[in-house]
Amino acid sequence: MQAEIITIGDEILIGQIVDSNSAFIAKQLNKIGVSVYQITSVQDDRTHILKAFAEAESNADIVIMTGGLGPTKDDITKKTIADYFDDTLKEDILVRQNIEHLWEVYVKRPVMQVNLDQALVPSKASVLMNKYGSAPGMWLEKNNTIFISLPGVPYEMKALIDDEVIPKLRSKFKFPYIQHKTFLTYGLGESSLAERIEKFEDELPEFIKLAYLPSLGRVRLRLSAKGDDKSIISSEMEKQTKLLLPQIADIFAGFEEDLSIEAVIGKLLTEQQKTVATAESCTGGLLAERFTANAGASQYFKGSIVSYTKSAKINVLKVSEEIIEKHSVVSGEVAEAMAKNVLQLFDTDFAIATTGNAGPTKDDTAEDLGIVYIAIATKNVVYSEKFSFGNHRFKVINKAANKAFELLQKEILKK
Amino acid sequence: MQAEIITIGDEILIGQIVDSNSAFIAKQLNKIGVSVYQITSVQDDRTHILKAFAEAESNADIVIMTGGLGPTKDDITKKTIADYFDDTLKEDILVRQNIEHLWEVYVKRPVMQVNLDQALVPSKASVLMNKYGSAPGMWLEKNNTIFISLPGVPYEMKALIDDEVIPKLRSKFKFPYIQHKTFLTYGLGESSLAERIEKFEDELPEFIKLAYLPSLGRVRLRLSAKGDDKSIISSEMEKQTKLLLPQIADIFAGFEEDLSIEAVIGKLLTEQQKTVATAESCTGGLLAERFTANAGASQYFKGSIVSYTKSAKINVLKVSEEIIEKHSVVSGEVAEAMAKNVLQLFDTDFAIATTGNAGPTKDDTAEDLGIVYIAIATKNVVYSEKFSFGNHRFKVINKAANKAFELLQKEILKK
Repeated sequence: MQAEIITIGDEILIGQIVDSNSAFIAKQLNKIGVSVYQITSVQDDRTHILKAFAEAESNADIVIMTGGLGPTKDDITKKTIADYFDDTLKEDILVRQNIEHLWEVYVKRPVMQVNLDQALVPSKASVLMNKYGSAPGMWLEKNNTIFISLPGVPYEMKALIDDEVIPKLRSKFKFPYIQHKTFLTYGLGESSLAERIEKFEDELPEFIKLAYLPSLGRVRLRLSAKGDDKSIISSEMEKQTKLLLPQIADIFAGFEEDLSIEAVIGKLLTEQQKTVATAESCTGGLLAERFTANAGASQYFKGSIVSYTKSAKINVLKVSEEIIEKHSVVSGEVAEAMAKNVLQLFDTDFAIATTGNAGPTKDDTAEDLGIVYIAIATKNVVYSEKFSFGNHRFKVINKAANKAFELLQKEILKK
Repeated sequence: MQAEIITIGDEILIGQIVDSNSAFIAKQLNKIGVSVYQITSVQDDRTHILKAFAEAESNADIVIMTGGLGPTKDDITKKTIADYFDDTLKEDILVRQNIEHLWEVYVKRPVMQVNLDQALVPSKASVLMNKYGSAPGMWLEKNNTIFISLPGVPYEMKALIDDEVIPKLRSKFKFPYIQHKTFLTYGLGESSLAERIEKFEDELPEFIKLAYLPSLGRVRLRLSAKGDDKSIISSEMEKQTKLLLPQIADIFAGFEEDLSIEAVIGKLLTEQQKTVATAESCTGGLLAERFTANAGASQYFKGSIVSYTKSAKINVLKVSEEIIEKHSVVSGEVAEAMAKNVLQLFDTDFAIATTGNAGPTKDDTAEDLGIVYIAIATKNVVYSEKFSFGNHRFKVINKAANKAFELLQKEILKK
């Protein structure tokens, strides 16, 4: 089965917003064995939308579109959908009630006609109820192709995909069995890794594919198998996993279960009832932000001190001025002091500290641009490592964060 | 002039990565008056890529593609480009030298053949040198359409667009005059705003367009004018600005110069030689992370304390236990104490504090899910406001951050 994703909206084509919806939809479709042939972003323009619909219909069994459902004038998607299906718009009473409810509880202002108009849907559409917003999802069928229209607001779209679209597709079709296994590796570049496992890759059976997914200091290796016989798929994936693992033993950091490394750490800490705090200089709060983006973070994440200046390191983090003078702020000694002190301040089991020079200009520290020290502290040990993360600010900050999580994960997993 | 953007890579279609490149490219093209007709993401598949090239060539004067240039086997873009142009690959000596230089200075391992192979480019291509990575940009022309191929790594692609592609396009073509003006508004939803300025929108001249760009608690209104006569465009934009401003005076927070609100604040603070610190509970480090994502943040951002538990608020931020017991951690009183204390701890001119319940479940606080208190402190005043940001964790955290920056900006701009 094949799908196409169409995202609608001038705001995408003028670059005002990044289309993050397509990646989410593609991921969820892939999980159930629906591959995505193409993603197309088109203008808020009737002719352009109709052309994209017709093309997608010729390639795909399922067409999922997002966007263009807002209450303002520049949104014309719904009328165009009605035209494409020779249909007219009529009010859906449940959608209207949902809108009135949302306004009463959250917006707390009188609901306006433009919002109530969002309850108008093509009469042939099945409504997919949107509990986080006023624009409903819609499901229509034409010549064996399913068209699904979803609002463009990411968290509204995500809830509709998970709660409505995927269950409805699963109940309607029998999907092939599909299995993914993602190996998280750290510390070896994409090309070195590819060279190392070239023979393994060449000898993979036809129905198993290998993808390299490099991102700022880590490479995810993804094996994907697809077929009708679940037992063949499973045993072959097991066999290939056993072949691959010894070849990457020194750089393997675990299997990824569709979770970020900070979410994996969060699960480990929650299970062990342990806690963590961070002391951040060059990562500037990114470690804290990534921990707390996960629901339930307050179970294990106690807090962070972002000390972006020397005086903050001395006055807030209580790093001794002597250590800083002797070794400079970008040093293993300072990173270790930061980690030790934040561990004590927040009374946690683990602490991470980062200090480095993210650039773009070399500051007054002795170390080069891109040099970062990362320290890990527990109640028993503290140690640091030095890294060189290149010459680009964004890259340095994000590589440092990934590396810090990697070191913490290793420390937590130590027996 | 019209462009199309093609992003190449299975990793996009399986949803492993979000295509953020297209938005950046579209934005930079729009700035010089090139509109983007369509963005298409295609598989690492020769036939699919060739089909996309041919379609793009029929719609666009400029085709910019990213991705598919990595060193591993699953990247076939370069060979397909050579085929499309009836060309062969040959080594570019300057690209080879650049690769050898990057490996020597940053990678510090022997350069491998797969990396050196990245110096192979179609012989008809002009090379666009990539100073951050091994995959070069390429510029080719066919039947009056320009094809530009760029690496998929975002910061490499961005540098090539700004330093090579845009200057080269500008020197080659005369572009129409284009002017954008973006009005940042806060506190009124898209639909209410649209209703309020309906008449203004209806009476805009043909060559000026209005777009609503809503995002988590703010709506950007963007006026875009395009034409050949610069003086007509400029005077009409000025006239429309004067008409619009009085109608949105109560919600207008300034013009956006393509900068995030935290970058605007950074500029203000740098000019005034003032400093800021943050005390974060529900925003979890996001304020600090957004400040420090900007180069030069150490000029004005001194640090943050992320206090994600009650004990951290008491022990690290020194909020009195009595205040917490009396008012609960989610309260204006606690937010104000956090802001006051972090201001003192970091010795700054301004401080922001956030405390709230981001969900997804209601914790043991008295306040409802989505309730956030934000406090602003200066050396003279401290105050807080209460907000309700809905029922979705991501939305609550990000709306709270946007609102906190908004309040700080207003405070800084107070006379």
